[in-house]
Amino acid sequence: MRFTSQTSSDGVTEQFFTLDEIPGVLWTPEAARGTRPLILLGHGGRQHKTAPNILSRARRYAAKGFAVVAIDAPYHGDRPQDEEFGRCAARMRAGMAAGENPGALVAGMHSYLAGQAVADWRAVLTAVQRLDHVGAGPVGYCGMSMGCGLGIPLIAAEPRIRAAVLGLLGVHGLAQDAARVTVPVQFLVQWDDHMVPREQSLALFDALASTEKTLHANPGKHGEVPAFEVDSSLRFFTRHLS
Amino acid sequence: MRFTSQTSSDGVTEQFFTLDEIPGVLWTPEAARGTRPLILLGHGGRQHKTAPNILSRARRYAAKGFAVVAIDAPYHGDRPQDEEFGRCAARMRAGMAAGENPGALVAGMHSYLAGQAVADWRAVLTAVQRLDHVGAGPVGYCGMSMGCGLGIPLIAAEPRIRAAVLGLLGVHGLAQDAARVTVPVQFLVQWDDHMVPREQSLALFDALASTEKTLHANPGKHGEVPAFEVDSSLRFFTRHLS
Repeated sequence: MRFTSQTSSDGVTEQFFTLDEIPGVLWTPEAARGTRPLILLGHGGRQHKTAPNILSRARRYAAKGFAVVAIDAPYHGDRPQDEEFGRCAARMRAGMAAGENPGALVAGMHSYLAGQAVADWRAVLTAVQRLDHVGAGPVGYCGMSMGCGLGIPLIAAEPRIRAAVLGLLGVHGLAQDAARVTVPVQFLVQWDDHMVPREQSLALFDALASTEKTLHANPGKHGEVPAFEVDSSLRFFTRHLS
Repeated sequence: MRFTSQTSSDGVTEQFFTLDEIPGVLWTPEAARGTRPLILLGHGGRQHKTAPNILSRARRYAAKGFAVVAIDAPYHGDRPQDEEFGRCAARMRAGMAAGENPGALVAGMHSYLAGQAVADWRAVLTAVQRLDHVGAGPVGYCGMSMGCGLGIPLIAAEPRIRAAVLGLLGVHGLAQDAARVTVPVQFLVQWDDHMVPREQSLALFDALASTEKTLHANPGKHGEVPAFEVDSSLRFFTRHLS
């Protein structure tokens, strides 16, 4: 793990790093020492590790004492492109323009990325928890949309993750992995989502095997999650990871 | 308004009162002086103003600085019975036993009570806000199940109510009044409710005209709302009434 920059502002330290080929950012409370709970932040499709919603969420969580890490998903952000991925993305866009089932198209894309994304996250989790100011505390995962589509296979495979905030995605392609998710989940639905049909979202919530799971639905389109849901996720992680 | 008893414990003062024929309880922070936000608590069917879930919620809100008032709904708690209501309740139970649509049966019962319940609440609200330690601050309403069924007509009619926590009820008989509710709403659904079909709950959430409304769904049956939802409602009222 190689740190490439470090800055601090408003009580939060931000460290850019690479682990093998994976570019990432770690946020911790300024001058943090010792073990603390860690939140993994998975970004959405065509976004990256410092997209505005990732940055603001990360700084909010870190200001409350958490360590927070975000990485670029495969073929996103600062990572090298891939011809096959480019064709896959073009097929998805063409299919959507042609009115094909968006759930199936998105699921195909996520499935193409999931194997690598899960391996990346597991390596990053191991490396980050070796740092003195993070340590092997409880771990949470937060990801919407593609961050949910890659997060569910990760949580199904990774026993270190003890709570998750997920949502903005339907059940297509995820039912089997969702049935292996047993940790507490806060699940977000946008009631007027133009990309994810409502019944597909509710079916993914249903498919999660967790005995403690809460669905939060708000009016608005795919990206219009209200700001108070960030506060709500913070309290959820505080309850389950502290 | 006539106070019949007053006790204080754990920083909360509890005052039983009657206003005309309406028996009620007012909770305020101990030694409270001056105007504060007020929450009206509507109990469920066959419950009353000091049912355990009402008491614990009231004390929780009052400990955080709110004034809280609960009254017995018509023909509930300490209020006189009524032959017609008895027949109505018996018809409802018989209909349910015979497999009739429970949404329609429950709606019939609520509709029988709503006119009186709305008038009672409006009179109590006026009287309570005249007290020095309550005053004319912002007002919220919280009611589940029958408390929701009587609360929606109340909120539709009562411009002093500025935010509401509702739920555990379907749309039957409420669509018109729900379309007149425009204040922020937090709406609870029990995902495995044996008394309210899920799609009927979602339809009531849909029918609310509020631009800010959040649905919280949790696994479990009708009465099994998790304790963290009380905390969540407290933050909701704090956000909208403070």
